[in-house]
Amino acid sequence: MTYSVTVRDHMMIAHSLAGEAFGPAQRLHGATYVVDATFRAPALDADGVVVDIGRAADALHGILAALSYRNLDEEPEFAGVNTTTERLCSVIAERLVLAVRTDGLGGGGVSGIVVTMRESHIAWASFEVEL
Amino acid sequence: MTYSVTVRDHMMIAHSLAGEAFGPAQRLHGATYVVDATFRAPALDADGVVVDIGRAADALHGILAALSYRNLDEEPEFAGVNTTTERLCSVIAERLVLAVRTDGLGGGGVSGIVVTMRESHIAWASFEVEL
Amino acid sequence: MTYSVTVRDHMMIAHSLAGEAFGPAQRLHGATYVVDATFRAPALDADGVVVDIGRAADALHGILAALSYRNLDEEPEFAGVNTTTERLCSVIAERLVLAVRTDGLGGGGVSGIVVTMRESHIAWASFEVEL
Amino acid sequence: MTYSVTVRDHMMIAHSLAGEAFGPAQRLHGATYVVDATFRAPALDADGVVVDIGRAADALHGILAALSYRNLDEEPEFAGVNTTTERLCSVIAERLVLAVRTDGLGGGGVSGIVVTMRESHIAWASFEVEL
Amino acid sequence: MTYSVTVRDHMMIAHSLAGEAFGPAQRLHGATYVVDATFRAPALDADGVVVDIGRAADALHGILAALSYRNLDEEPEFAGVNTTTERLCSVIAERLVLAVRTDGLGGGGVSGIVVTMRESHIAWASFEVEL
Amino acid sequence: MTYSVTVRDHMMIAHSLAGEAFGPAQRLHGATYVVDATFRAPALDADGVVVDIGRAADALHGILAALSYRNLDEEPEFAGVNTTTERLCSVIAERLVLAVRTDGLGGGGVSGIVVTMRESHIAWASFEVEL
Repeated sequence: MTYSVTVRDHMMIAHSLAGEAFGPAQRLHGATYVVDATFRAPALDADGVVVDIGRAADALHGILAALSYRNLDEEPEFAGVNTTTERLCSVIAERLVLAVRTDGLGGGGVSGIVVTMRESHIAWASFEVEL
Repeated sequence: MTYSVTVRDHMMIAHSLAGEAFGPAQRLHGATYVVDATFRAPALDADGVVVDIGRAADALHGILAALSYRNLDEEPEFAGVNTTTERLCSVIAERLVLAVRTDGLGGGGVSGIVVTMRESHIAWASFEVEL
Repeated sequence: MTYSVTVRDHMMIAHSLAGEAFGPAQRLHGATYVVDATFRAPALDADGVVVDIGRAADALHGILAALSYRNLDEEPEFAGVNTTTERLCSVIAERLVLAVRTDGLGGGGVSGIVVTMRESHIAWASFEVEL
Repeated sequence: MTYSVTVRDHMMIAHSLAGEAFGPAQRLHGATYVVDATFRAPALDADGVVVDIGRAADALHGILAALSYRNLDEEPEFAGVNTTTERLCSVIAERLVLAVRTDGLGGGGVSGIVVTMRESHIAWASFEVEL
Repeated sequence: MTYSVTVRDHMMIAHSLAGEAFGPAQRLHGATYVVDATFRAPALDADGVVVDIGRAADALHGILAALSYRNLDEEPEFAGVNTTTERLCSVIAERLVLAVRTDGLGGGGVSGIVVTMRESHIAWASFEVEL
Repeated sequence: MTYSVTVRDHMMIAHSLAGEAFGPAQRLHGATYVVDATFRAPALDADGVVVDIGRAADALHGILAALSYRNLDEEPEFAGVNTTTERLCSVIAERLVLAVRTDGLGGGGVSGIVVTMRESHIAWASFEVEL
């Protein structure tokens, strides 16, 4: 028995991907990611929610704003790793975990987080973690 | 190994949400919920389906019709609780469980139900239960 | 030869509709409207845009915020008229026209506005006006 | 902790469904299936991906091309079974499992596959298998 | 200044397309068409609508039901013509025009009809006619 | 009386936008554009189509491939202009016009072209030209 709430936002970045397998995506290009952050819980709180949806949306927006409108190839935190969609999902999910653990988002009730990033109408990735 | 079938319908209701966290949503307002009901099963029946899709759609439609075009603040069954999206998901899921258990929807094969309600293009909730 | 830019936002309201034709929608209920505002122009400005997309989104958001989380049946401006989706489209469009004409949104280049409001996954309405 | 990558493609087929429960769908008709193939893995490979997305898309496309633009009622492999959406999901998933196991798609890291087929805006099915 | 209202429904058919340009679609196959019917009017009626949305949805549903779950290659009305998406749009639009003209749908106010048929996530067609 | 056919594809690019109005988008970033190309015609050809959909999709794909996975800031053809979504729409539309005029796409019947580029779930632009 699991409840979940999802909020959607987006970010636009530039990057390149290293490795022959990426073909033309080895060149500097970019992407819009439509980002869905899902918060899971086994029960609702006293207000009847999994998480305050306004605070959840703000937390996601803050995390995306710190990444948005940047060339990820030049961000020190991504030095030496490919900023693939699946990796970015885990980066954003880990930051949401932090918001849950240290900022009290969800008031202790959140048991899992899923981040899905849609990079086009025909491809997306996700990362799912239990707390 | 899990099969699933999902049918989509919608409902439109009025309500208000009690609690400071809800901000302007404490006022009477309303929502369209696009509702997805998913039926899961470990195997297909003799017809090759999880559930008769016509009967599943009818069951969902009947449940939604009983809630639609109403002010949920005035419905006795919701007295004292917030009709948040996540709670409404569980209300609808429990009624589908009943349809599975007592009306024979799915012919005994259904092992789980998920209800997802989309309240806008940027927010949705779900409730998932195993049978 | 026409350029256009569209921004999407949403609002949630309660209302009822008077007239037998509306059936159960004569009862107090509500809706989420996903609202698309389109600005048309025959040419781009010096920045290469139809309208500053940030200002367009802000204008739409402000107009929707003034209507959101309300029971439209109790708003004096809608006394005696049905707040159907098509009428709400024209209300929002007229306010966008005002933003174009008096606030300088679009810098004089906007030649038309379209507002589309999606009330569910199976129904929407729009209003289109030339300036 | 699970990563996933999904690619989308589609196929168009004719078929009929045997059994009274199918009503008018017992007649020869057809469908467009928008097909989502999801690959899951507990970790990323050295390139930072779950699976080479180009190879995944090609594998899915090849599997769909072998079924597309056909009358499934006349295909020997479907003799005596109903080609329901849920069954077609499992057929495609099993072929993707083969691509993972024998063609090396995913380089040994793929731990699960999900195939979802959308047959209209109000109905879809899926099949999920662990490797 | 134009108002419009759109309702969505769908149909599933089998057919083949004659002509080398159609490649594999020359074989018998099928499609799901998600069908959007738009009614346009220069003004709203006394109820504040372009058309009674319930009657519009019923009119569309009846037209689609007469075509659904059939092999269009065997329907006398389509003998000798290709039932391409764009042609089917015009067939459905002409029947809606009839509903407007002879059944009084829209009460005399409808000035135009558009039918859009989505045959997959990457292709659609439409037909637009003024009354 | 107008028929139309639309095909969808996408491209991913990096770029920056010059001008204070663009705020953080003045930094190098990128976008996925989901691109819809619409071909309009007053009548169908002998095959019953507006345009050979396979050739239309190929023409669009070729135009997008020439722009994809690039940093548009470094492309000589865009020197000194902002590659806003609305401008990119017109660039792609003009190339489709060329395909219609010089490559015979549409066999002389195409009377208009519309290109719509979706840059996120909340913003898109389009360019429409008559031939």
